[in-house]
Amino acid sequence: MSTEPSAIAAIRPTIALAMGDPAGVSPELTAKLLCLEEVRAAAKIVVFGDRRILEEGAKIAGVALDVSYVAPESPFDATSRPVFIDLGHLAPSAVKRGEATAEGGAFALENFRRALLMAQQGKADAVCFTPFNKKAMRYVYPGYDDEIRFISEVIGFTGHAREFNVLDNLWNARVTSHIPLSQVASTITAEGILSELALTDRTLRNAGFASPRIAVAALNPHAGDGGNFGDEEIDVIEPAVKTAIERGFNVSGPYPADTVYVRAKGGAFDAVLTMYHDQGQIAMKLMGFDRGVTFMGGLPFPVCTAAHGTAYDIAGKGIANIGASRAAVLLAARMAAQKLASQNA
Amino acid sequence: MSTEPSAIAAIRPTIALAMGDPAGVSPELTAKLLCLEEVRAAAKIVVFGDRRILEEGAKIAGVALDVSYVAPESPFDATSRPVFIDLGHLAPSAVKRGEATAEGGAFALENFRRALLMAQQGKADAVCFTPFNKKAMRYVYPGYDDEIRFISEVIGFTGHAREFNVLDNLWNARVTSHIPLSQVASTITAEGILSELALTDRTLRNAGFASPRIAVAALNPHAGDGGNFGDEEIDVIEPAVKTAIERGFNVSGPYPADTVYVRAKGGAFDAVLTMYHDQGQIAMKLMGFDRGVTFMGGLPFPVCTAAHGTAYDIAGKGIANIGASRAAVLLAARMAAQKLASQNA
Repeated sequence: MSTEPSAIAAIRPTIALAMGDPAGVSPELTAKLLCLEEVRAAAKIVVFGDRRILEEGAKIAGVALDVSYVAPESPFDATSRPVFIDLGHLAPSAVKRGEATAEGGAFALENFRRALLMAQQGKADAVCFTPFNKKAMRYVYPGYDDEIRFISEVIGFTGHAREFNVLDNLWNARVTSHIPLSQVASTITAEGILSELALTDRTLRNAGFASPRIAVAALNPHAGDGGNFGDEEIDVIEPAVKTAIERGFNVSGPYPADTVYVRAKGGAFDAVLTMYHDQGQIAMKLMGFDRGVTFMGGLPFPVCTAAHGTAYDIAGKGIANIGASRAAVLLAARMAAQKLASQNA
Repeated sequence: MSTEPSAIAAIRPTIALAMGDPAGVSPELTAKLLCLEEVRAAAKIVVFGDRRILEEGAKIAGVALDVSYVAPESPFDATSRPVFIDLGHLAPSAVKRGEATAEGGAFALENFRRALLMAQQGKADAVCFTPFNKKAMRYVYPGYDDEIRFISEVIGFTGHAREFNVLDNLWNARVTSHIPLSQVASTITAEGILSELALTDRTLRNAGFASPRIAVAALNPHAGDGGNFGDEEIDVIEPAVKTAIERGFNVSGPYPADTVYVRAKGGAFDAVLTMYHDQGQIAMKLMGFDRGVTFMGGLPFPVCTAAHGTAYDIAGKGIANIGASRAAVLLAARMAAQKLASQNA
């Protein structure tokens, strides 16, 4: 750790929290989150949404809310209790539970945009959101590819950002993501690996790891078995790892993908850099579907959310597991506190 | 179950067990196996190896052997205790622990060949082996690609056989296996999927599942996201699943690869058919590295082994986990008993 953990724990950053898709579990998760003592203690929370949707969520979750409601653009103080900025933009009667609609998409988009702008203006130290439904968001914003793209557009960010998956203290990064499997092998380059390694290293340092131990996954079965089942390990990945080591990164590999997570689970690594989406996602979801966090790394401020989706099938039943959303807010708080501590150091 | 479980449990098949690579954990695992009450109760065991190597293994494992030693080609009866056929073909002094050698490869190959021929001649109902080292075996038999190929050569089998991974009651099959990832997408065909589905269904029926619930994994991230990240789901996998359902298989999918094992772990399926090696191996090894079994399906008799390897790094320390080898022998015994029961029915 680069700064004393106790000093970081004493910092209580401000987190802008956007309510997600109203037709799924977002309302109940938001209400639950606002009642968690550890969440309230870790950060000053400012929520963007509609009071009526939140209160419906509280009813479903069976929790008693303790928040200050304020109108948009009004002054507020989130020190003693969470602040809820009531945009009054969605009536509960307009919500069709379990259905992706334009109204739901517009609601989530506006909350997210406000939260991002608050952070961009330096009034929040991190952004979180409860689950979105991309289909609903695309009804009102057809260019909504993924969160990184949207965030970059809203805050005018042009740098390199990337989604990470985080489970407890294990991080997962990837060289390729949402592309067909048939294009994975030809898309992987030593430059791409080195770029993701650098971002992974930087992100984990920002999370408080002094010298992140990064394992690089192989591409082919049995890591190519010495070239018998593919040459990418020999031609691309091994040289990239060698270069990364020369540049001072605490990196090793390539490791066969089917055992690297067994080792990581045992504590051998802080992060695994995978070559493609499912390589890491299979492992991460299996190890902790209920606690997995998605973290957008490389942006000017931390952005976190639960790794799971809107869970339309269980929305409104009050049974949605708060674990991943809780972990997302606590990670955002820790990352923001770490950043504030290093700025003050 | 197609036959009464109690009737099957009463059957005690004969298992031919080949000692594997002598430089790894095989000797100690063989010795431990022979001392397990449930293994002895489940099957009549006939081992092929060298008595001196076994006794060294027993010393390492700290177990007292209770077996009948016999010379090759001598009559024996394995009813009351395991029989060890002492081929006398490897002196302990010739073993270099932790090293793949021609001597070690020749030892394992000969044991395996004898066990396979015993089963082919109808004198054993199933074959098991403790971990092999392919590199060692290739020193003396350069054409040793994998077990299926070798078995087929030894017993003159020309049908379709395939490796399965088994963890407790969950089976894993795959459409492609030891090929470069870059070739996976172009190798997958509807015919290939249907052929593997049929073999999976047949193998699970042989294991006692009355109507195996088989999940088919997607190829691309998010199952292609409706064609956004690849077309193979739409063009190949969905049509194959549809055809399989029409043919009466209890099959569903394609499911996103990163959640299908979360569901399977929860008991939703008896088997998952994956599109490539690591898709299933990442999940299966993570769920139970110490209990995973490799099963060769489609052969005239069951062949099983532990899913792990020779573990050269811990060989000779007496700490090798017996769990996977134990599970392999018990699975072989159950499959063989099931077959004997159906022949007698």
